[in-house]
Amino acid sequence: MGPVESACVTLSAIREKSPLVHNMTNIVVANTTANALLALGASPAMVDGPEEAPELASVAGALVVNVGTVTPAQADAMKLATAAAHKASRPWVLDPVAVGALTFRTQFAAELLKNKPSVIRGNASEIMALAGKGAGGKGVDSTDSPETALDGAKNLARRTGAVVVVSGPIDFITDGERTAQVENGDAMMPYVTGLGCTATALTGATLAVCDDPFYAAVHAMVYLGVIGEIAAKETAGPASLQLDIINGLYRLNSDTITTTARVKMHEAVA
Amino acid sequence: MGPVESACVTLSAIREKSPLVHNMTNIVVANTTANALLALGASPAMVDGPEEAPELASVAGALVVNVGTVTPAQADAMKLATAAAHKASRPWVLDPVAVGALTFRTQFAAELLKNKPSVIRGNASEIMALAGKGAGGKGVDSTDSPETALDGAKNLARRTGAVVVVSGPIDFITDGERTAQVENGDAMMPYVTGLGCTATALTGATLAVCDDPFYAAVHAMVYLGVIGEIAAKETAGPASLQLDIINGLYRLNSDTITTTARVKMHEAVA
Amino acid sequence: MGPVESACVTLSAIREKSPLVHNMTNIVVANTTANALLALGASPAMVDGPEEAPELASVAGALVVNVGTVTPAQADAMKLATAAAHKASRPWVLDPVAVGALTFRTQFAAELLKNKPSVIRGNASEIMALAGKGAGGKGVDSTDSPETALDGAKNLARRTGAVVVVSGPIDFITDGERTAQVENGDAMMPYVTGLGCTATALTGATLAVCDDPFYAAVHAMVYLGVIGEIAAKETAGPASLQLDIINGLYRLNSDTITTTARVKMHEAVA
Repeated sequence: MGPVESACVTLSAIREKSPLVHNMTNIVVANTTANALLALGASPAMVDGPEEAPELASVAGALVVNVGTVTPAQADAMKLATAAAHKASRPWVLDPVAVGALTFRTQFAAELLKNKPSVIRGNASEIMALAGKGAGGKGVDSTDSPETALDGAKNLARRTGAVVVVSGPIDFITDGERTAQVENGDAMMPYVTGLGCTATALTGATLAVCDDPFYAAVHAMVYLGVIGEIAAKETAGPASLQLDIINGLYRLNSDTITTTARVKMHEAVA
Repeated sequence: MGPVESACVTLSAIREKSPLVHNMTNIVVANTTANALLALGASPAMVDGPEEAPELASVAGALVVNVGTVTPAQADAMKLATAAAHKASRPWVLDPVAVGALTFRTQFAAELLKNKPSVIRGNASEIMALAGKGAGGKGVDSTDSPETALDGAKNLARRTGAVVVVSGPIDFITDGERTAQVENGDAMMPYVTGLGCTATALTGATLAVCDDPFYAAVHAMVYLGVIGEIAAKETAGPASLQLDIINGLYRLNSDTITTTARVKMHEAVA
Repeated sequence: MGPVESACVTLSAIREKSPLVHNMTNIVVANTTANALLALGASPAMVDGPEEAPELASVAGALVVNVGTVTPAQADAMKLATAAAHKASRPWVLDPVAVGALTFRTQFAAELLKNKPSVIRGNASEIMALAGKGAGGKGVDSTDSPETALDGAKNLARRTGAVVVVSGPIDFITDGERTAQVENGDAMMPYVTGLGCTATALTGATLAVCDDPFYAAVHAMVYLGVIGEIAAKETAGPASLQLDIINGLYRLNSDTITTTARVKMHEAVA
């Protein structure tokens, strides 16, 4: 079964099981993230408190950790929650927002890696920073191309055991051995705040129902790329695009995915 | 005067007085809550700081306390603010988001009850947990039906002196003696994050102008149910529904309420 | 070059340079603020942590400080960040949300002034409170007219060296010597939460590319007033207006500004 066909299977599983996705995320995207997950069919819960986050992380279908507006208190809770998820063998996904551009979170994200994320999704500058390369982006925006970051992504994947996603005009997904690229999307998408965070959150939903984190990551990037591409065709601007993407996730189905998805698997070069 | 007619009177009073509604709420719904209150005609202020919340709570028309993303710091401020509201005889409404599913907030919400909320609004699992029954929901989502929770709601109302609202496909409102049900709404509404939180916030506005908390709670559920039902008829998806509900609250008037509201008062069985 | 012509030049510069605008803002407007800045052409980053905020503030194009939902932890970070911006000669803009209505933030905002904001933007009650006059607004809403606050604004500008903006149906901008008024906007705009915060955030973008803070403040008020006025003409309600304003900022161009802007410079009276 190829990545597009399995994306349809994963979507059906999300709709059927409505997995509980625990989000520890930033104040910018909390609303749009919850709405995107609901629209896809998941059951999101946003829980940051240090007493509660570990409890929820050990029973949720997946945990999403996004350091976009991390504070010391939230960082402590994230450490506890990712440790709890790891101990309970629950998948979790890391979004290293602005890692490389800011010192505290660069060190913090590196520390979180020891709790073994299943997936790491960032832009090129963030992934290069986590991989120990690059000069950092401009705030939350990348100053590097995904192609540039692919080698670092493969190394990071091999070192950590995580699937690594470098998102951009073309998204690259790699587990160090297998690599896929998703070519959907639209140039207006970076004008909507936090669509990368949405991709990460959707990965939480796919991880909760799909046993292979590599495919789970590909599927999430397919969903968002397909919907974003379709929505952007007739949109009035980036605020409408944000709204249309959530509406689109609600209506997403196998036909839309099959017709629109453009996924390429790289040849293995061993 | 019946509950529908009085809902129209309360709406006029909100529009005329523009009551200050103090919200201590979660990061997911802060924007949509403020916009819903503004659209209805109230003057929302979102204030969480421990130095400020008690000051505002003692002068606001009503206080809304929502534990959706509660942290220890916010919990401390909520204790102070609800105590201040109680001392100043200001009405306040509690939204026990995910109570029953998470230990810390279950204990915390029970502790808040001693500051005598005027209204408690939750889904069936949350209300059953507060009432000391039930096994807890799935994260923020209910795993029980409102009908199941009604007995617990009545007991909770009698024990605490609060009006208790169990929202769901049919909303039940009870003060332990009187019970009403609001039958408006739409099946798409649970796909929008935080519409329950919106209902709670609107209850803050009605409490600020309506002396009977039972009716205040009924009115808020009527407003949201009526608008949600109308908006859902022509919506493009849940993100549009969130937007249309706020637009609809802005245009809400007595005609719309009278034409669309379906409220039933239960017979007293004493 | 007049204020309208220079507003067009500033817009081109934002689009070309995409300045990094560091926001320390409230949980209500974080999403809409980020989207408004992206739509205008800037690169927003929302960073509140005490370890990170000073680091980013000293390299960003401008810093936006909004005390809307300030907590003690965020207040400490804001002190450090504004000191860092001042030390690095980076412009920063203060939004004193609800100052005058709440004691803690009134003292805190006064304290921030020693780090020399380039611009202060508030409603009439907030500016009068900062100027040491007035009785405070109702929560976050003004109970005074901008005209009433203009004298206080001029005094505040002279005392602090900041440009002071009093926004309302007519916006006044003054540096204590020069005064301008922007007459664009629409009566529906106060029904959208946080458009004042959006104005402040846009001022961050203009400050980052325009050396004269007086003109930078005028330009930001022009952008929002022009777009709000156009969007309100055909809007379905305040939630649509919020969305249309962000879409409109994305499409804003010199033609729209030149056709619609109504800016008057006051005669100097020395």
